[in-house]
Amino acid sequence: MEADAIQQALMAPISPVAAHELATEQIKRCIQLGLFLPGEKLPPERMLAERLSVSRSTLREAVRVLRAAGYLSVRRGAAGGLIVHDAHVEDPAELRAWIRTQRAHLNELLDYRMVIEGAAAEFAARRRTDEDLARMEAALQRMDRSKDAALAQTEAAAEFNAADTVYHLEVAAAARNGMLRKAVEDIRREMYLPFGGFFVRTRTDADVYHRNIYDAIFDRDDARAGEMMRLHIDLTRKAIITFLDADRLRG
Amino acid sequence: MEADAIQQALMAPISPVAAHELATEQIKRCIQLGLFLPGEKLPPERMLAERLSVSRSTLREAVRVLRAAGYLSVRRGAAGGLIVHDAHVEDPAELRAWIRTQRAHLNELLDYRMVIEGAAAEFAARRRTDEDLARMEAALQRMDRSKDAALAQTEAAAEFNAADTVYHLEVAAAARNGMLRKAVEDIRREMYLPFGGFFVRTRTDADVYHRNIYDAIFDRDDARAGEMMRLHIDLTRKAIITFLDADRLRG
Repeated sequence: MEADAIQQALMAPISPVAAHELATEQIKRCIQLGLFLPGEKLPPERMLAERLSVSRSTLREAVRVLRAAGYLSVRRGAAGGLIVHDAHVEDPAELRAWIRTQRAHLNELLDYRMVIEGAAAEFAARRRTDEDLARMEAALQRMDRSKDAALAQTEAAAEFNAADTVYHLEVAAAARNGMLRKAVEDIRREMYLPFGGFFVRTRTDADVYHRNIYDAIFDRDDARAGEMMRLHIDLTRKAIITFLDADRLRG
Repeated sequence: MEADAIQQALMAPISPVAAHELATEQIKRCIQLGLFLPGEKLPPERMLAERLSVSRSTLREAVRVLRAAGYLSVRRGAAGGLIVHDAHVEDPAELRAWIRTQRAHLNELLDYRMVIEGAAAEFAARRRTDEDLARMEAALQRMDRSKDAALAQTEAAAEFNAADTVYHLEVAAAARNGMLRKAVEDIRREMYLPFGGFFVRTRTDADVYHRNIYDAIFDRDDARAGEMMRLHIDLTRKAIITFLDADRLRG
């Protein structure tokens, strides 16, 4: 890219962002990071509007957009309210087709994840405190519980995904670099849609190396922590390829 | 950070961004990336407003903010207009004091830069095309010319900085990963203020390894490209420490 081209790109028309768009974005981020789980009820509208410092009508506009985009649904009745939509029950064939169209983007994302999270694990091994370890351990145990619990398959997957996100964010927090932490959050958000349905089928694979990463960080062994993280991510990449190839063999 | 704490942070009050704030941000980014150089005249107000798709009064509000923040000044008369402020003539003692207060942030930034740009150089070595090489070469020659040209010291430094930014963005573009490219841009923007005045004094040091990085990318030697980039950044870190220590010795 030449200086002129870069300048042109940077001076392109801007469009202001309205309050309801920011509210939409913020609720979406919470869902994408698994902080509100599928099937879970959000706080009442009035409370949400208050916490986001927006008017009721602004919040309603955000909710309308989030419903249209399939993030939220409305349950009527006394026990009703805003429910996080269950994105984890996608049709496998549809999911495969979607992943295939996103293949270039997914490869880019996984390359970037390897760089960012590999480095985060290395820094975490050098800088972690006992409190960091305790928070990672809690996330690991939450993942284990989701596998043992008598939950419906999609519920267990959602709970596992949420704990998985917390685990990776805790590793990044222990790295004590705000920019790395932010990058890991961005990556998790990007991974939300394709992996919702996907991890229902592959979460056993996905869990491999989580404990090894923890052990290396515990031992303050930065080279091993980075290596285990990269192996973990490489396994994710392989699981996607296997998933796509299984489809190709079938027809 | 626990899930509750993360959720709280994500659900914090939002505040909408006005059009003039977005315009401010976009012009600032162009200056920070060296696409408009200190002393350079911006396009006329009417044209700027058109390119950014904002009203004249919105643009004027952005200009007012950018003048207050020291990014722009107004030159009166026939040859007048909006001039990019020369941030490169800061008082060395003031600059040192500023860098010292930013020391923790700078360390964080340089750690992150090492990770991101090291990886970008590796990917670039694997994926570069001849066109990528030509664009890097042009940036290298622009840096060389800025050193040979009969320019005032601060002008030469500004020109060198701009070419340096283009060089690093070209390496990132050759890596063919949009997220890495975006991260390099973010880093360059963060480096704008402290290094404006700083590079007047250290640009000879800063140029070491630029050619070696190019050569390794030319040879498609990814390990060496990554190593050269990391050595280049490490030298920047050392130059900052030397700069701060020289001040301490003096009193």
